[in-house]
Amino acid sequence: MKVGILLFDDFETLDVFGPVEILGRLKDYYQISFYSQFGGMVSNSHGVSIDTQKLDSILAGTDIFLIPGGMGTRKEIHNLELLDNIKQICKLSKFVLTVCTGSALLAKTGLLDNRIATSNKRAYDWVITNGEKVKWVKCARWTVDGRFYTSSGVSAGMDMTLGFLQDMHGLEFARKVAFQVEYTWKEDKSKDDFCNQ
Amino acid sequence: MKVGILLFDDFETLDVFGPVEILGRLKDYYQISFYSQFGGMVSNSHGVSIDTQKLDSILAGTDIFLIPGGMGTRKEIHNLELLDNIKQICKLSKFVLTVCTGSALLAKTGLLDNRIATSNKRAYDWVITNGEKVKWVKCARWTVDGRFYTSSGVSAGMDMTLGFLQDMHGLEFARKVAFQVEYTWKEDKSKDDFCNQ
Repeated sequence: MKVGILLFDDFETLDVFGPVEILGRLKDYYQISFYSQFGGMVSNSHGVSIDTQKLDSILAGTDIFLIPGGMGTRKEIHNLELLDNIKQICKLSKFVLTVCTGSALLAKTGLLDNRIATSNKRAYDWVITNGEKVKWVKCARWTVDGRFYTSSGVSAGMDMTLGFLQDMHGLEFARKVAFQVEYTWKEDKSKDDFCNQ
Repeated sequence: MKVGILLFDDFETLDVFGPVEILGRLKDYYQISFYSQFGGMVSNSHGVSIDTQKLDSILAGTDIFLIPGGMGTRKEIHNLELLDNIKQICKLSKFVLTVCTGSALLAKTGLLDNRIATSNKRAYDWVITNGEKVKWVKCARWTVDGRFYTSSGVSAGMDMTLGFLQDMHGLEFARKVAFQVEYTWKEDKSKDDFCNQ
């Protein structure tokens, strides 16, 4: 399956590279590419610069489209052309995964309306303003609604990605990958240790 | 403090970006830069390409020098010029952190002789051949010996980095950062859930 990862300036480092570590090592199944609105180098405040392809090369959709969070989402939520592109790609992709405040961008397109979704609790009050018809779940490590996977903050993206592997390949497969990267997978997506109701 | 991160082709994604997420968000304390032997773009098999500076620009040392692991270490362990550079930088840096098989590169320089260190258990038999005088600890999430921090595989780099923050700023500071990135920090460095004695 082709994995398209959206980048924008000031994306959150681990939102991207947690899932990349997990999917990237499964070369027989997943092939990762990075995209941004205009292509070229995209940077964040952690000093990370990544080379990307132009987003319009996957307007016909991809297998898995991943939208990270980060402070950059506060700017991109007003970028109507980017949101249009995101909407079209998400409509035509087999699966859509968001990490942290990435769910705000997805919610803004309307595609999460009447679906369950979650986000980073420390940005929750802002995130939910971007999708009033979304069935927001405040306390969840990640949520699944059909082909839409959304996760809580930062590290939760790894748990969601392992949950995605479970859904694709079975529980033991996902556990084996978690063991390989020495990550203690929080297998229960509804249990959120970082949320105060 | 300046943080210099060594990259080489086929570095392990999360070995690098776990610590980068944790240190990178503390902009008042840490400033991250990426280095490689020849500078320029460095890539790995997960499709990640990062722009780097030339390693010889920090031959006089830096505050924190971080060496990741990954399959690339199997090649670089024979790269005598790189090992010479690593040795000089580590001698002159305030702290040296390694993740996963990064400890093999550090051990090969001789600087870990008579010091405790650990590594990825799934590469352990190979790693220890690169430092016969090192006091290898097979089961540890991470180890500390003076200014040398070494961690177990992949995700363990995040626990070690949080442990480093604890040593620099105190336990509550490190716990707060772990909470911000929604990571369940394994605070006990001697407890290794991924090791069978």
